[in-house]
Amino acid sequence: MRVAAVHKLAMADPGDTSGADGLDLRDAVAVVGKTEGNGCVNDFTRGIAARAWREALGSHVVTVMSGGTEGVLSPHALVISEIDEDPGAPAGALLVAVGSSDPIAPAALGREAQARAVAASVRELCRTSGIPVGEVQLVLVKCPLLIGNGIPSGAPPPITTDGYESMSRSRAASALGVALALGEIDEAGLAAGLAGDRNVHSAVASTSAGVEVDRCEIVVLGHSPGARGRLRASHGVMADALDTTWVRTTLDAIAGAGGRVLHVLAKAEPAPTGHIRGRRHTMLTDSDLQPTRHARAAVGGLLAGLSGDPAIYVSGGAEHQGPPGGGPVAILWELAP
Amino acid sequence: MRVAAVHKLAMADPGDTSGADGLDLRDAVAVVGKTEGNGCVNDFTRGIAARAWREALGSHVVTVMSGGTEGVLSPHALVISEIDEDPGAPAGALLVAVGSSDPIAPAALGREAQARAVAASVRELCRTSGIPVGEVQLVLVKCPLLIGNGIPSGAPPPITTDGYESMSRSRAASALGVALALGEIDEAGLAAGLAGDRNVHSAVASTSAGVEVDRCEIVVLGHSPGARGRLRASHGVMADALDTTWVRTTLDAIAGAGGRVLHVLAKAEPAPTGHIRGRRHTMLTDSDLQPTRHARAAVGGLLAGLSGDPAIYVSGGAEHQGPPGGGPVAILWELAP
Amino acid sequence: MRVAAVHKLAMADPGDTSGADGLDLRDAVAVVGKTEGNGCVNDFTRGIAARAWREALGSHVVTVMSGGTEGVLSPHALVISEIDEDPGAPAGALLVAVGSSDPIAPAALGREAQARAVAASVRELCRTSGIPVGEVQLVLVKCPLLIGNGIPSGAPPPITTDGYESMSRSRAASALGVALALGEIDEAGLAAGLAGDRNVHSAVASTSAGVEVDRCEIVVLGHSPGARGRLRASHGVMADALDTTWVRTTLDAIAGAGGRVLHVLAKAEPAPTGHIRGRRHTMLTDSDLQPTRHARAAVGGLLAGLSGDPAIYVSGGAEHQGPPGGGPVAILWELAP
Amino acid sequence: MRVAAVHKLAMADPGDTSGADGLDLRDAVAVVGKTEGNGCVNDFTRGIAARAWREALGSHVVTVMSGGTEGVLSPHALVISEIDEDPGAPAGALLVAVGSSDPIAPAALGREAQARAVAASVRELCRTSGIPVGEVQLVLVKCPLLIGNGIPSGAPPPITTDGYESMSRSRAASALGVALALGEIDEAGLAAGLAGDRNVHSAVASTSAGVEVDRCEIVVLGHSPGARGRLRASHGVMADALDTTWVRTTLDAIAGAGGRVLHVLAKAEPAPTGHIRGRRHTMLTDSDLQPTRHARAAVGGLLAGLSGDPAIYVSGGAEHQGPPGGGPVAILWELAP
Repeated sequence: MRVAAVHKLAMADPGDTSGADGLDLRDAVAVVGKTEGNGCVNDFTRGIAARAWREALGSHVVTVMSGGTEGVLSPHALVISEIDEDPGAPAGALLVAVGSSDPIAPAALGREAQARAVAASVRELCRTSGIPVGEVQLVLVKCPLLIGNGIPSGAPPPITTDGYESMSRSRAASALGVALALGEIDEAGLAAGLAGDRNVHSAVASTSAGVEVDRCEIVVLGHSPGARGRLRASHGVMADALDTTWVRTTLDAIAGAGGRVLHVLAKAEPAPTGHIRGRRHTMLTDSDLQPTRHARAAVGGLLAGLSGDPAIYVSGGAEHQGPPGGGPVAILWELAP
Repeated sequence: MRVAAVHKLAMADPGDTSGADGLDLRDAVAVVGKTEGNGCVNDFTRGIAARAWREALGSHVVTVMSGGTEGVLSPHALVISEIDEDPGAPAGALLVAVGSSDPIAPAALGREAQARAVAASVRELCRTSGIPVGEVQLVLVKCPLLIGNGIPSGAPPPITTDGYESMSRSRAASALGVALALGEIDEAGLAAGLAGDRNVHSAVASTSAGVEVDRCEIVVLGHSPGARGRLRASHGVMADALDTTWVRTTLDAIAGAGGRVLHVLAKAEPAPTGHIRGRRHTMLTDSDLQPTRHARAAVGGLLAGLSGDPAIYVSGGAEHQGPPGGGPVAILWELAP
Repeated sequence: MRVAAVHKLAMADPGDTSGADGLDLRDAVAVVGKTEGNGCVNDFTRGIAARAWREALGSHVVTVMSGGTEGVLSPHALVISEIDEDPGAPAGALLVAVGSSDPIAPAALGREAQARAVAASVRELCRTSGIPVGEVQLVLVKCPLLIGNGIPSGAPPPITTDGYESMSRSRAASALGVALALGEIDEAGLAAGLAGDRNVHSAVASTSAGVEVDRCEIVVLGHSPGARGRLRASHGVMADALDTTWVRTTLDAIAGAGGRVLHVLAKAEPAPTGHIRGRRHTMLTDSDLQPTRHARAAVGGLLAGLSGDPAIYVSGGAEHQGPPGGGPVAILWELAP
Repeated sequence: MRVAAVHKLAMADPGDTSGADGLDLRDAVAVVGKTEGNGCVNDFTRGIAARAWREALGSHVVTVMSGGTEGVLSPHALVISEIDEDPGAPAGALLVAVGSSDPIAPAALGREAQARAVAASVRELCRTSGIPVGEVQLVLVKCPLLIGNGIPSGAPPPITTDGYESMSRSRAASALGVALALGEIDEAGLAAGLAGDRNVHSAVASTSAGVEVDRCEIVVLGHSPGARGRLRASHGVMADALDTTWVRTTLDAIAGAGGRVLHVLAKAEPAPTGHIRGRRHTMLTDSDLQPTRHARAAVGGLLAGLSGDPAIYVSGGAEHQGPPGGGPVAILWELAP
């Protein structure tokens, strides 16, 4: 059986793949990374990186590049490969499965059709990879956005004509699709989520929108009881942007067991209420700086401090990913040798 | 003897002082707070708040308003008053002393004259307040900046004509003044610091520049062995923007002793090398977002997460305040009852 | 009869009213100006200026402060006074009428209720001032915005919870109210406008939203056939952000007649189609800079160049003010002596 | 003899070269264009476009991509080709010459060495192309910038460690090099310019810095008395950001002669004094938006309005290019048929 392996590579600029030099990455299947653009509508750094990594590793590689390295966050790529399992290692190794949906039409974006397309892909990836639905630890989705002037006249009206808002809608639908595929929500939950109920959420979805894709690119990470290897992923949820409980507990547990943390991946967002623990935040009223940039900077600072590593994946906009104002977190780690 | 007491008050907007309603703040001597502007040159929210608090509490009150509540940070004011000591409380209570320098001429800003003006004021405040120099825990300085078009022609040339750069220079000179007054550096250190050696630093200075002042407003907090009360301040240093060691240890110690944390005050800055723990950061190359905004957001997120409170004071630009890329931190807390 | 007189005063900072020193402004009724904030949700410079001018000229003065002096635009205030008519001057002098609506409830903002409140005020101002409806040259409205966290729970849901979007909605409703009052649109037009038809518009409304007001402050400028004086206003429309036809023709005509231009007031916005004269613009896809900031800078640069004066009033967001992508312009000028 | 021909092509995104489809551009030698990034340090859109055009037209093509389409400006590329002269056309046709300097070392950037390297290249291009020095109408230079962390330790210290400032320094040295090559300044002028005298300037240099180049890429446009063709370039200077005199006169003259305007290319900057025609501007004190973004938006709006075309080349930062606060302008046009 093939199991997942990861390499975290620094990037000196959005097109830098020199970190791969000298490595055998022939079996790479996905690249998940952070680039230094604004992470919003006119962020072209994601596209530069996606293209560069496909040129470096092969056009089959699925790329999930998330823009925005505000604060201490450091641009990097996590290359995920499939390698032969290690017969001498414990069972329950991490597996990876990658794929993509069909193109998402502008009229489908942010709507039920997008959610169902993602759900179908995730189900199929679980089925074909042998990752049991209950063992999924993280589902990364890179999904499209709308730019107002890209919509053909005569086409059905899109859910919004505002590009930034379309990113939120696309992330939301993708997350609901993941939740539906994994049984975290049912049909009623999907309907409620699509109607705007932010409490409906997935605990393992991590979705990111970008102008560089026209479909949903998907990376599923989960354990297989029958596969042997040392790589593991743990997932938890931050209840709000200050919530360190799960992360501290888990980091301590890994360290206590002699494990080694390889990566942290999290979603972050401004609390929609405008308040965190009763205190007013200003992320939603700052017209100079987009809310997602604020959120990445703050949660990135927190998780980098806790983990001691600024080259982590913190993505902004956590619609239906964790509770409102919070977000899912996953830690990739290696068992003690 | 008069000792320090503090009230932390939420602010619904930069001019909001309604948090003081119903409180007896007749003995207020200083207000230290965060407002929601950009914290840079054209941040007028600091001035709104400073004016509002002086109108609310009296024109004698020294105000140190720091702009920038990026990420989770929450606008607030810490009102510092002087109250009679509590004879039944332990000795070593926190005292406060406030004052200001003479106006800083444009040609003096960022130069030796400013440093010496601050040093003289700090020394005088220690002397008159009875706070031993060795017991100073935190010195907050609000200092002026330059706006290019405010410099009279014929005047000596300023150290820079760039407003944002002038904030850095003003903070730097103020911090060196504090360090000199407290014996953290000697004359050679002052010279080296003024010449640009960023390793020369104070561990207790916290300086912030703003267009709303034309002189240095100063707040000294320190313990008096002879004063009785329950309020304490502890100070430490973050070695870099990820360094949680002192903060975690100190928070644990306070909690372990049954104490109650009232406030956290810290300085933050992008590592001048462009790297944190070997990882590249992008705070210095992002032309859309000033470096200090990045730094406040990230360190604010970290300290808010560690302390569980987003209404904390994190100020950007830590020139000669802690080591390069790091900064001083102070925690105000109350002994167990 | 009382006629309008204007003084244009430079402002060195948002609270600077020193331009009024030495002037007799006892009869001032309105101040219309530009301040140097971002012109968006968290622009507090408008409030600083409004307060300063009311303190300087009296609390009865109606203030319409518009934020955003991008590009060459220069912060200034136009103080509008009422003075005795000049019996020796030609008839058809400019008159001013000022007033305000009742407070606009959050649920009313951007909706029919706001439009009708503005319409009622404008009609009343025309009636009481003696400015015939057909002689109105410019109606300035300062209207409120919503900040998400200011809405009481249990209240009817607002039209949007996004602060920046609420500015657009508030400007839109105000402009439709002006158009209705002046007979530029009928009830069907109002309904179409409220339903989103951007082609429904006023040629004289100039509306601006701000956090500093809770009601609509209104300034009507128009000619009275029976009043004698030398001040005039001409109004036209820019068909798009490049349209110089009316402005050039009118400036030439005024100059040709020996008149003197005193002020230019215009509205500007990004073309909603994403294109200007067949060329793509990027104002709607730039997540680093709000669309209204782009528009003010560009149209401000154009009108300042044409008029030779950067201290002009260009306000961003021209919903139902002129055709989509364009906006109304008014020129205040004085007859040849 | 070979003369210049131009095609102006719209770009739907920074990598879009589809405008070239169906055109015969085998003889293209240069692409000069505007892309939609922030035009500052972390603008990667210039690099995307440069790469795309070299891929489309050949790696020999010299690219001068300038970032920043603030306001009405529209992303586009001007492809400049060399074609056989038209024997039936009038003499005095426009010629183009392209080349590049050696790489500019970090220590050379912004200093005499860079100016001399540009001067040598420009002189050589005039000599080999047959464009008399006195007939040069426009010299476009794309030059490098510094990013702090790209400087090898041990190397001579750069002129600045601030990336945004390094752009200004690089543009300045390049412009002085052009001026020196063309005899607009002498050695004393070069020295004065390098020492910071902003009045020393070229009337035909148009320099732009970017992270995508490590040397100076140069495009010279000038007339040859002996070459026959219909393409012409006229150049003038804006004395400040409002100065329309030369542009209006020239546009009128071209129209009057039955000519057709093909393109406008201009440099723009905030007046270093902080004032334009005695009125304060806020471009230098706005910490949310870089000065060059302000300047491009305003001057772009003005020139687009005057020319009726938003797809024009307006580049920010006019150090030693035209007088302080102003800048050179060139108009490409075609003789009446």
